[in-house]
Amino acid sequence: MFKFKHKIQYYETDRMGITHHSNYIRFMEEGRTAYLEENGCAYDKLEKMGVVSPVLSVNCDYKASTTYGDTLAISVAVTKYNGIILEFSYVMEKEDGTVACVASSSHCFVSGGGAPVIVKRAYPELHEKLLALVTK
Amino acid sequence: MFKFKHKIQYYETDRMGITHHSNYIRFMEEGRTAYLEENGCAYDKLEKMGVVSPVLSVNCDYKASTTYGDTLAISVAVTKYNGIILEFSYVMEKEDGTVACVASSSHCFVSGGGAPVIVKRAYPELHEKLLALVTK
Amino acid sequence: MFKFKHKIQYYETDRMGITHHSNYIRFMEEGRTAYLEENGCAYDKLEKMGVVSPVLSVNCDYKASTTYGDTLAISVAVTKYNGIILEFSYVMEKEDGTVACVASSSHCFVSGGGAPVIVKRAYPELHEKLLALVTK
Amino acid sequence: MFKFKHKIQYYETDRMGITHHSNYIRFMEEGRTAYLEENGCAYDKLEKMGVVSPVLSVNCDYKASTTYGDTLAISVAVTKYNGIILEFSYVMEKEDGTVACVASSSHCFVSGGGAPVIVKRAYPELHEKLLALVTK
Repeated sequence: MFKFKHKIQYYETDRMGITHHSNYIRFMEEGRTAYLEENGCAYDKLEKMGVVSPVLSVNCDYKASTTYGDTLAISVAVTKYNGIILEFSYVMEKEDGTVACVASSSHCFVSGGGAPVIVKRAYPELHEKLLALVTK
Repeated sequence: MFKFKHKIQYYETDRMGITHHSNYIRFMEEGRTAYLEENGCAYDKLEKMGVVSPVLSVNCDYKASTTYGDTLAISVAVTKYNGIILEFSYVMEKEDGTVACVASSSHCFVSGGGAPVIVKRAYPELHEKLLALVTK
Repeated sequence: MFKFKHKIQYYETDRMGITHHSNYIRFMEEGRTAYLEENGCAYDKLEKMGVVSPVLSVNCDYKASTTYGDTLAISVAVTKYNGIILEFSYVMEKEDGTVACVASSSHCFVSGGGAPVIVKRAYPELHEKLLALVTK
Repeated sequence: MFKFKHKIQYYETDRMGITHHSNYIRFMEEGRTAYLEENGCAYDKLEKMGVVSPVLSVNCDYKASTTYGDTLAISVAVTKYNGIILEFSYVMEKEDGTVACVASSSHCFVSGGGAPVIVKRAYPELHEKLLALVTK
């Protein structure tokens, strides 16, 4: 499974002494964009094609805290793709294997102008690539 | 119902031209802390008592995008409190009444050292205040 | 002098227990955009005209720390405008009058495509408004 | 010279389409903390010793914009250390060698309680390590 590493930065901590929970939403994006890039669907490539992929929802369960100095291994997988909606799941583990966070997100596809895009029809090659990720 | 206003800042937008989705998790915190402060349970007051309240989970459904110049009215409500877990719901509306985001979060209570805190026993006054928020 | 209020949020603190220094650069932007908006030069209005105003430099001296619960009063002034470069100064004060931060920034004007814009020639009305701010 | 790599994330861009200028202050911290870690003076090690190192000032000149997909090579050097003040300089280059940002920052040392720390007297070993960085 694809894994992305993120080292927690000092600016990502809060005065509770731990990584602020909002940052995990950003780590999800770091993992997701790296995963898509590795599989030939990088966000900037999509944007050049005239497609953007807004986030429809995020869910995040915090299992253990992290802080400055920790490194997270972020596992990313596509759990659903039906030509309209793309869903990801994420597991973030600390170096000792402790699960820090389990999360998911869903995404759609729109044109630069904001109109919904039927990927299958408009971008068949991208469609095939995304389909292949589900069973990966 | 309690409402908190947040004006979207330029630094909260991304290159899709809209407010980056991770920032809504921060807007939830802005609304929640303002709500708790108004009801005599401000985070800094809790911390002085030796209690911190980490986030257990967040869920966020993005219904409409916002951007620089928009102002969100964030409605905050306590949906559950059982002495151990505190849950909030949020609705964020644009100035024209469009719902931009519907969200929820859950929280626990721990001592500064990280040990779980039974609020009812350790802080009965805080417990009563939080209980009163559920039916508010 | 124009003053903008910013209440420090929990997510703006770091594990030193204070507002992370990078956030003051964002407070400068909050103050600057509010100031320009009040003076008829709002960023979104400029962007609709086809002009964006990238930041050329920032300088920030941290005089006293702040933390969650503090409210900063941010004074903003235009210190220079010559038709090409626009400069701002900022003083941020805590509620008791303690100066937390003294800062400055400089900005230029480019078209959406990135080409330099001679404001005086291309947008004479904007030019007059900006000129008027220097001596304000 | 020490170089640290930072890949620009989508959440670091703004609606101008470029990396928001405030993030470079965070990239400075990423480079600085990595540099200190490599030289045996990691922030978390200092904190365990009871020393924190607040930022006194930052200066940042933006020379060229970057955006999602770019990778910055951040060169970090200590330009001054006199036992009380520690100063860093930074140069950030894009993959094609274009300089995106030239910056500097200064720092002091205080105890967890906020009292100034004379590093030379209180932490002679740390003092020697920091001194050695100036001429490196």
